[in-house]
Amino acid sequence: MSALKEINHTGLSTSRTEHDSMGEVQVPKSHYWGAQTERSRNNFKIGPAASMPEEIIEAFGFLKKAAAYANSDLNVLPVDKRDLIANVCDEIIKGELFAEFPLVIWQTGSGTQSNMNANEVISNRIHVLQGKEMGEGILYVHPNDDVNKSQSSNDTFPTAMHIAAYKILIDVTIPGIEKLRDTLAVKSEVFKKVVKIGRTHLMDATPLTLGQEISGYVSQLDHGLKALCHTLDHLSELALGGTAVGTGMNTPQGYDIAVAKYIADFTGLPFRTADNKFEALSAHDALVESHGALKQIAVSLMHISNNIRMLASGPRCSIGELHLPENEPGSSIMPGKVNPTQNEAVTMVAAQVMGNDVAITVAGSNGQFQLNVFKPVMAANFLQSARLIGDACCSFNEHCALGIEPNYDGIKKHLETSLMLVTALNPHIGYDNSAKIAKAALKNNKSLRESAISLGLVTNEQFDEWVRAEDMIGTIK
Amino acid sequence: MSALKEINHTGLSTSRTEHDSMGEVQVPKSHYWGAQTERSRNNFKIGPAASMPEEIIEAFGFLKKAAAYANSDLNVLPVDKRDLIANVCDEIIKGELFAEFPLVIWQTGSGTQSNMNANEVISNRIHVLQGKEMGEGILYVHPNDDVNKSQSSNDTFPTAMHIAAYKILIDVTIPGIEKLRDTLAVKSEVFKKVVKIGRTHLMDATPLTLGQEISGYVSQLDHGLKALCHTLDHLSELALGGTAVGTGMNTPQGYDIAVAKYIADFTGLPFRTADNKFEALSAHDALVESHGALKQIAVSLMHISNNIRMLASGPRCSIGELHLPENEPGSSIMPGKVNPTQNEAVTMVAAQVMGNDVAITVAGSNGQFQLNVFKPVMAANFLQSARLIGDACCSFNEHCALGIEPNYDGIKKHLETSLMLVTALNPHIGYDNSAKIAKAALKNNKSLRESAISLGLVTNEQFDEWVRAEDMIGTIK
Amino acid sequence: MSALKEINHTGLSTSRTEHDSMGEVQVPKSHYWGAQTERSRNNFKIGPAASMPEEIIEAFGFLKKAAAYANSDLNVLPVDKRDLIANVCDEIIKGELFAEFPLVIWQTGSGTQSNMNANEVISNRIHVLQGKEMGEGILYVHPNDDVNKSQSSNDTFPTAMHIAAYKILIDVTIPGIEKLRDTLAVKSEVFKKVVKIGRTHLMDATPLTLGQEISGYVSQLDHGLKALCHTLDHLSELALGGTAVGTGMNTPQGYDIAVAKYIADFTGLPFRTADNKFEALSAHDALVESHGALKQIAVSLMHISNNIRMLASGPRCSIGELHLPENEPGSSIMPGKVNPTQNEAVTMVAAQVMGNDVAITVAGSNGQFQLNVFKPVMAANFLQSARLIGDACCSFNEHCALGIEPNYDGIKKHLETSLMLVTALNPHIGYDNSAKIAKAALKNNKSLRESAISLGLVTNEQFDEWVRAEDMIGTIK
Amino acid sequence: MSALKEINHTGLSTSRTEHDSMGEVQVPKSHYWGAQTERSRNNFKIGPAASMPEEIIEAFGFLKKAAAYANSDLNVLPVDKRDLIANVCDEIIKGELFAEFPLVIWQTGSGTQSNMNANEVISNRIHVLQGKEMGEGILYVHPNDDVNKSQSSNDTFPTAMHIAAYKILIDVTIPGIEKLRDTLAVKSEVFKKVVKIGRTHLMDATPLTLGQEISGYVSQLDHGLKALCHTLDHLSELALGGTAVGTGMNTPQGYDIAVAKYIADFTGLPFRTADNKFEALSAHDALVESHGALKQIAVSLMHISNNIRMLASGPRCSIGELHLPENEPGSSIMPGKVNPTQNEAVTMVAAQVMGNDVAITVAGSNGQFQLNVFKPVMAANFLQSARLIGDACCSFNEHCALGIEPNYDGIKKHLETSLMLVTALNPHIGYDNSAKIAKAALKNNKSLRESAISLGLVTNEQFDEWVRAEDMIGTIK
Repeated sequence: MSALKEINHTGLSTSRTEHDSMGEVQVPKSHYWGAQTERSRNNFKIGPAASMPEEIIEAFGFLKKAAAYANSDLNVLPVDKRDLIANVCDEIIKGELFAEFPLVIWQTGSGTQSNMNANEVISNRIHVLQGKEMGEGILYVHPNDDVNKSQSSNDTFPTAMHIAAYKILIDVTIPGIEKLRDTLAVKSEVFKKVVKIGRTHLMDATPLTLGQEISGYVSQLDHGLKALCHTLDHLSELALGGTAVGTGMNTPQGYDIAVAKYIADFTGLPFRTADNKFEALSAHDALVESHGALKQIAVSLMHISNNIRMLASGPRCSIGELHLPENEPGSSIMPGKVNPTQNEAVTMVAAQVMGNDVAITVAGSNGQFQLNVFKPVMAANFLQSARLIGDACCSFNEHCALGIEPNYDGIKKHLETSLMLVTALNPHIGYDNSAKIAKAALKNNKSLRESAISLGLVTNEQFDEWVRAEDMIGTIK
Repeated sequence: MSALKEINHTGLSTSRTEHDSMGEVQVPKSHYWGAQTERSRNNFKIGPAASMPEEIIEAFGFLKKAAAYANSDLNVLPVDKRDLIANVCDEIIKGELFAEFPLVIWQTGSGTQSNMNANEVISNRIHVLQGKEMGEGILYVHPNDDVNKSQSSNDTFPTAMHIAAYKILIDVTIPGIEKLRDTLAVKSEVFKKVVKIGRTHLMDATPLTLGQEISGYVSQLDHGLKALCHTLDHLSELALGGTAVGTGMNTPQGYDIAVAKYIADFTGLPFRTADNKFEALSAHDALVESHGALKQIAVSLMHISNNIRMLASGPRCSIGELHLPENEPGSSIMPGKVNPTQNEAVTMVAAQVMGNDVAITVAGSNGQFQLNVFKPVMAANFLQSARLIGDACCSFNEHCALGIEPNYDGIKKHLETSLMLVTALNPHIGYDNSAKIAKAALKNNKSLRESAISLGLVTNEQFDEWVRAEDMIGTIK
Repeated sequence: MSALKEINHTGLSTSRTEHDSMGEVQVPKSHYWGAQTERSRNNFKIGPAASMPEEIIEAFGFLKKAAAYANSDLNVLPVDKRDLIANVCDEIIKGELFAEFPLVIWQTGSGTQSNMNANEVISNRIHVLQGKEMGEGILYVHPNDDVNKSQSSNDTFPTAMHIAAYKILIDVTIPGIEKLRDTLAVKSEVFKKVVKIGRTHLMDATPLTLGQEISGYVSQLDHGLKALCHTLDHLSELALGGTAVGTGMNTPQGYDIAVAKYIADFTGLPFRTADNKFEALSAHDALVESHGALKQIAVSLMHISNNIRMLASGPRCSIGELHLPENEPGSSIMPGKVNPTQNEAVTMVAAQVMGNDVAITVAGSNGQFQLNVFKPVMAANFLQSARLIGDACCSFNEHCALGIEPNYDGIKKHLETSLMLVTALNPHIGYDNSAKIAKAALKNNKSLRESAISLGLVTNEQFDEWVRAEDMIGTIK
Repeated sequence: MSALKEINHTGLSTSRTEHDSMGEVQVPKSHYWGAQTERSRNNFKIGPAASMPEEIIEAFGFLKKAAAYANSDLNVLPVDKRDLIANVCDEIIKGELFAEFPLVIWQTGSGTQSNMNANEVISNRIHVLQGKEMGEGILYVHPNDDVNKSQSSNDTFPTAMHIAAYKILIDVTIPGIEKLRDTLAVKSEVFKKVVKIGRTHLMDATPLTLGQEISGYVSQLDHGLKALCHTLDHLSELALGGTAVGTGMNTPQGYDIAVAKYIADFTGLPFRTADNKFEALSAHDALVESHGALKQIAVSLMHISNNIRMLASGPRCSIGELHLPENEPGSSIMPGKVNPTQNEAVTMVAAQVMGNDVAITVAGSNGQFQLNVFKPVMAANFLQSARLIGDACCSFNEHCALGIEPNYDGIKKHLETSLMLVTALNPHIGYDNSAKIAKAALKNNKSLRESAISLGLVTNEQFDEWVRAEDMIGTIK
């Protein structure tokens, strides 16, 4: 990446001449990209170089290969050209050519030059693999007429977005969430008999078990996973075959279905051609929808990791009912301090995902006529959220959740001193009498039992029979 | 409502004395609410009076009635009390007692006093229906011990949120969207042969039909409806039976399932008890999830109504390819002006829903321990979005979509002058030669045909054969 | 308001015939509004009736009166018409005619019909005050040609937005924040010697005083007030005089300056004519800017009220270092429970304001050509935020902040048991040795002193000299 | 960066043993970072490696150097250690040691390990510069006791945030905006007599000049710059000197003022010590405030670039009143197409900044007790927004704004055919008659003049005298 940056700032030491429909361009000699990529590279010096996500580049590898196969099957591309293209696409998919994709997110909103970047790199790489010198001789496989055959940026880029989005959800996001979910499910089971005080409004309330408390987190993640999976169907629809405006102009009959099938084969994911290509180019509601589920999961993760760190707060001056693993010295000034750092990373990720959701919402709502031109920003935000959630769940799981243990002393102390066990008296002496007992206990700094008896509302035996934390936690599932 | 406001500002002319576990309170004599409602009314003068949504109050009617039935079935409430309670609940459901609910959204985050408001109103209304004077004698049906039996604010309020949310989606939101969707589907069919110029990047592109263009909108709404329906299952889970912290303390065995069944019966909607009550009290991801779908629909509506008004822009100095119904004089200074006002209302609603989504996200992520205390703000934003989308779709449908007509003259003029039909020449003379033709035509202010022939790249006959807009629009479905 | 709703749903029992440039309209007989208002009322049944904020209607009172005076001064309106108009405007300002403004937020995005509503009401009210029957005879003061003279909706509505926004900030928002700020400043001073444990990452840290802790809140509000005041200058710019597109067409020379001066006089606020009317109509960055400051204050309020409730959490099982006033019974099931309800209202308001900020951002970014058509939604969100913040600060101040007291027992207990006072040993025995002491103390459940001495790193006397909480709190200001 | 990534995935080929207060750690032999950095690197594999912004690392260079000077002046650090530290800090500031900062944003929310990273790198780099081998012998300058003297992560990281934020605004953001603003101001002047049709609600309206239209954009940017500059004062406050919780524990008297002064000297920016250190650690409202202004500018940029591309839409089938520079071939399938790509990049940046604002809002509102632990995510979002806006303005300026030219033919054609010049007749024949003329013209497809005369409402001579576009544009400034 530093190589790219250097070029960006110091210009080109050696170059070759390329041309496109607008004329000549000087291109760095050692790189496969061509005139249109170079134009975009020079015209959009916004943020760090080469910021277009690698997942998008990988997805272009899949789709260009699939297009070559579909074109060949439908007799608009010779088999030898198909194979040459497919060969380079495999290199792209393996990540071997990432250095040939220098463009940024903040380019044209259709990603046109990133599509051309793929076309140019494939053409030139074939040229070199054929033993020729870049910039010399005629390209056997033409970037527009062959590599881009039956395609337009307007259908390739949204196709790449869906491939990249679906793939990262399956490869990174969902497995990460599931890991954390499974660990919490185990903890919920293991701690299912650890009775502890409940808290509502941050104030002491009736008891529950630690296992029950954690089961709520599991349920949140289960619902989140379900919601996320619901969005996969919309993501599985591919724009490819719509070409410039959605009509499929300049594509052979049957191409859209064929190319989607190849993409499904190559990725192992259930992609299919979009029912409506006009939507698929002009709107990206599938990303809006799917990121909505990611945002929901961010909300859950904020809740879960925030609650876990509050339960672990202390060790002596706060709640202190959980022990979390100690991973790093927590302070450069306070010796011996240990902090819930994994929780902090997760909550920061959650804040980021909430912000990304708004970026995607704004971008998604702004499509004009036949094309939404906020594609790269939508893709970048989606992929960041998907990766961060997946990675953060793995990290939190490995370095925190797996090591969560109850602080039995703290839990016991709180349970014994709490006043809200008075609630168990409601069915026996009524809400108003129970309230009197609790208020008197608090005021006189007494235990609930002392207060109840001194007020003459309950006998010692009744108290023993009625006020039992272990009876207040329902039927534990 | 003005009555309530007056009270708020001028105080109470005549009052009766009520008391709760904290002591005495003066309550307006003519109203059914009691001590706790009055405390909240006085302690939270934030924004307009009585802002708690009526849908929530109605939902309390359903759930208090269902609780009475379940309690009675399980032998913890006598049948006569059940019937007294149910009778008043029916009045609440009919909206006859809305004036007895003076509280605001901006109260305790659990909605506790709104739950108590329902309890107090039901008790006192029964008292009066029994021929007694308010504030005198003993209440036959006690607000806490009878009306609130087997309940806590912590499980009633989230139950009311789900009832209200599910109901408004079914009653208002989905029918509204479907109306608009159906109208657009008809328009798409009717205009399926109206060939017009396409536009990408706001620039002239290859043609499509008006029917195709509108079909993209239909597809967006179909996907949005599907996404919204996916969220109903999570909304169908009810917290009731969890009581204070989710354990179900102080409820009879089987109560949670029974009460959900009654709510399902009374509302006609498929409610069921939540699998995990700890989640149901401490997090409201179901609302986050469902509002995520509303936000997706807002994104679609922004796109659709924005595009329709751009296509109708003019009448003489912009695009002018659509005629929209003329509903109001459009300007207080420019005579004869007519504006796309329905589109403007829809896009404003969309902006509101996008904002509401963030409010719900922030609120949903902030639950602490066993309770999320942002319940009323979540409910209010959800219900506003759901109603606005439903109403706006109906309004837009009736006053705009139904009357959309093509401006055939404008469509024809644009199609004839466009240069992007040159794309049809790509397969015959290649991309680079085609580009030369288009550029020369633009530069010399010529037609595409003139330019093609004068450059010697195509004959007149070839042009006729190859460049036919009606061949560029794919197989029309 | 219920009267309006009834009309909306059941239609008009008795009506009179009015007409505008599009033809005849049936208007409710008993109301002052005319044809254009009625068209909008019927065409936009979106959300509750009459939702256009009253502050906007009041602002129309100010600006229509100011326009009449400026027009009269510049000899385009007779003095008698000026006085007739001004008289009704005074009624509007006093709120006597709110029932004559039935329109909703979700109308045309320019607020054109709300401007016409004001014009029509003023004309008809004059007509009636002159002893005539509505709908009969000729209006002496014409809604367009007189009341709206030298105006367009396009410059009146944004002017009303600025008047309403500036006014509510001065009348409600700033005084509310200042009240809370002042109370917290007093508390900070009163508690300036109450040494307590600090907490970072939710974990025990070195001590500070309660006064210092609260001083941070004061500083936040001071910065927020300063930021808010910075935005007033942009809000003071008025669009009036720009008319339809910003050029000031159909206004007499000097009108824009004159009318702004009258508005300044009538409101007592430093309004002036906008330097650039084209911005003032096509963008509402002043509202975006000012609401940005409201959002900043929401962030501060979320932080402040969240921290106060965490410090007050308990009473026995959490932190419990503060006592908050007890305002309502906190639970319908748990007797004796008291909750930090004011904090909950404030944090819900904060969440709402954060959401409103996004609605305003989206709306503000979408202006097209000479007009932003998201005006009503921007106004409504701004005014809601401004009122909620002001009201919530007052409520929180009165019912919570004024009554905050330290729980000295809890504070002392935490200070004595904390391990982070070990930080005081760093300069004497180094960070690494200090860490050993703290870790051993925690592991062996000992006090810091015991641990330090048993490790042989510090003598008893050194401990006394070096580890003194009151020396760790800096120079108290 | 690829070096770092490789390490992350393949582990350490050769390592040395380091230790901290928690024990031994294996650290890559060739890198300067130590035990705590390595722990964080291994514990937080979230997103791409080394994502902590370089601006933050540079800022640590400034502040560590300033701390060394202040400590030395106050006699708690020897001069020779000061100079050794300062020397390495200069290398950091020059960017020579970026490869030694491998940590990610998604670490502890206090940035503690990034502070330690700086401490460790400085210590070890001094060690090596002194001719010693890393991992062998005793460090002459200790990371905690010397480099971090009088500091805590809790005050260094927020100090670094303010330094980095202020600096990027001055170096990148403001100059970028000013460049664009100046270009638009020139364009506004040059085109001040180009009369064109106005548009409101996307519909034809009364005329204005192109210069006037552009002047609105200039005014927006002027207001945005002013708003941004208002936020600099809050950003100039530095937390340094507050140490762990804001009390300044373990700092010499006068240190906070002294260190801020050195930072001001070294950066050339007017930094000063924060009045209230408790706010400065526990809340980051200064970033919230300043990013609010960035978001306002994003709103303006969205508006400006969106309008410019709509005015340039065409070339033949839309508005086509502007020519924008042609920078790249616009389509891989449609030959000769040119698109407003710079506008697209700017609007995508705007969407990103709007999203980042929400991330910062959520993060800023979540500080608990003495520390906000969302620092890195706030810094990263702020710095991204600041850079993107600056870069995008430069790019848009250079590649689009400078080359904007009117399409005089298109402008003239629209002006001549528009019907809204009828507004000029209002003062002469009244609004209602004028409306009749406009409506008849539209209906009968006639010019305004033809319609006016055929209706007998105006003579030919009157029309000539009254309807003059050049008289409708006000007094051009």
